[in-house]
Amino acid sequence: MRNFDVKKYIEEGKTTYSKRKDIEALADKVTARGYNNIVIIGIGGTWAEWHPVVHVMKHYTDLPIYLENAAELCIKKDKRYLTKDSLVITVSASGDTKEILAAVKMCKEMGIEVAGFTKNNETPLAKELDYIIANPCGDCEDSYMMFFMLGLRLLYNRGEFPNYEKFADQMGVLHENLLRIREEFEPRAAEIARAYAKEPYNIFVGSGTLWGETYLFSMCILEEMQWVRTKSVTSADFFHGTLELVDKDVPVFLFKGEDEYRELDNRVERFCQKITDKLIVIDTKDYDLKGIDEEFRVICSPMILTALVTERLAAHYELNTGHSLDFRRYYRQFDY
Amino acid sequence: MRNFDVKKYIEEGKTTYSKRKDIEALADKVTARGYNNIVIIGIGGTWAEWHPVVHVMKHYTDLPIYLENAAELCIKKDKRYLTKDSLVITVSASGDTKEILAAVKMCKEMGIEVAGFTKNNETPLAKELDYIIANPCGDCEDSYMMFFMLGLRLLYNRGEFPNYEKFADQMGVLHENLLRIREEFEPRAAEIARAYAKEPYNIFVGSGTLWGETYLFSMCILEEMQWVRTKSVTSADFFHGTLELVDKDVPVFLFKGEDEYRELDNRVERFCQKITDKLIVIDTKDYDLKGIDEEFRVICSPMILTALVTERLAAHYELNTGHSLDFRRYYRQFDY
Repeated sequence: MRNFDVKKYIEEGKTTYSKRKDIEALADKVTARGYNNIVIIGIGGTWAEWHPVVHVMKHYTDLPIYLENAAELCIKKDKRYLTKDSLVITVSASGDTKEILAAVKMCKEMGIEVAGFTKNNETPLAKELDYIIANPCGDCEDSYMMFFMLGLRLLYNRGEFPNYEKFADQMGVLHENLLRIREEFEPRAAEIARAYAKEPYNIFVGSGTLWGETYLFSMCILEEMQWVRTKSVTSADFFHGTLELVDKDVPVFLFKGEDEYRELDNRVERFCQKITDKLIVIDTKDYDLKGIDEEFRVICSPMILTALVTERLAAHYELNTGHSLDFRRYYRQFDY
Repeated sequence: MRNFDVKKYIEEGKTTYSKRKDIEALADKVTARGYNNIVIIGIGGTWAEWHPVVHVMKHYTDLPIYLENAAELCIKKDKRYLTKDSLVITVSASGDTKEILAAVKMCKEMGIEVAGFTKNNETPLAKELDYIIANPCGDCEDSYMMFFMLGLRLLYNRGEFPNYEKFADQMGVLHENLLRIREEFEPRAAEIARAYAKEPYNIFVGSGTLWGETYLFSMCILEEMQWVRTKSVTSADFFHGTLELVDKDVPVFLFKGEDEYRELDNRVERFCQKITDKLIVIDTKDYDLKGIDEEFRVICSPMILTALVTERLAAHYELNTGHSLDFRRYYRQFDY
């Protein structure tokens, strides 16, 4: 596969999986401490990665869970739910995301403890955190795996996700599955990128557990790293405006998931089949997960999608656009 | 002003304002009945119109308020907050929006009462409702005014918005203000539309109380009614992907509001001033509201913005694109 180091991938997967005990210890510690709500602070890609985790958690619990944009949290006045009784969780792999640091500092000034994920114990973020999960490596699926482990362990401790141990055990085979899935998808990734990487405008549609990844791929990968123009919209909202832009030659990327929202995705698919010659459907259901129970497939669906698009498809876009995924002209290049 | 009937506008404003007593009676009745949360059901433009109302309400109350997409609500499994103790509110001016009707029928089957806004007592929606606010006329600002009256009257009844009477009294001069504001903006609307109506791609940025209207204008007006390609993004998320697409000749429309999120809008403005020659800033603060107190300006900001863009700017886009605002090729044209 283009630009993909299999050995490194499997090793990094093992390292990430080995964080399970730290994550469970964290969940158990904060459970013992007690909390009356959960406030998760992300921004851009990290907000999007937490989106399916919160989405799934809300399926199992009534506990108030707030998924906050760090920049907005800092300035908004109505944040009375953010107290010393909150369980605050954040993430910045680099550990120097400006808005995340500001939000964490604000929490600290309010006397509120913060748990977070970052690459090591030395980042600026790590220095502010009360509880650190340090992991130097990984693709988005590693983030998803760690975040789901934390979120679902918390629910397990509340008696709301009794199958946590089985879920976490089975995550041990996630990476080998996602490696095989990548290999299966590789020719299609090459073909899609060859056909569409230079399109002047692209519609991305997803829903439910896949909405976060749909938003992430279009904004944080294609816009930020490839300067490709996108519009992302949920499968429900697609029919309230964006549909009118679909035409024979307008590419619509539909990311089909496996939760109850799939019905809404199907509606988009039926419509687009009639209108555009450029409908690209990526369906997580087409990919086997060996050794992982059916009941955990929805949880794994954003992990499958991120392996397919955010990682593999992006690599092939790069090849066709000639625009390095590492090159930015503005983002983090100067103060703004 | 192009395609604008002043007399009709003022008369329709009066009709809408005259609904105040029905709205207050509804609020008082459901307050007496009791409820433990509020579930608001919209889709597309109606979801977007409720967005600032919920945003402002959450500023004043801890009461759980859920703003739901009708299509998603119908299929989602985790809706345990939707019970007979919920206050359910919906809207469909035409009264035949498919997803809204389905959601309301679902509520009725669950034995849950529903209050709603629709054009008259004869629409399919009206036939399902337990409480009806019937209003045959109006622009988006009329919807905002009615929704804010209902939402804030409910909070007033809870002791959380003590200045409700003053607010509602002052709404009596809203339309004359928005008429004058339209006239002030008219030459600029003509100029903006002349310069940008045919742009192949447009970025729309807004935040906080104006996010709903930003989303609505780009999706429900420009995409649906003008087939203009847009990307809408919040002022916070703009810096996590979309910024890389800004270039000297890429139009960025920034809608600046008057709440605490303005700080985030300012950051977008400073950045874009350096990068693009096509920055269009529309700032609600530039427009006086005579006879309306400063403390209600944030509430009125989406009403100002909708008068400026969703109504006036759209009228001038139509003139320049030659594409009637009434013409759709797919939306409501056939089953999908």
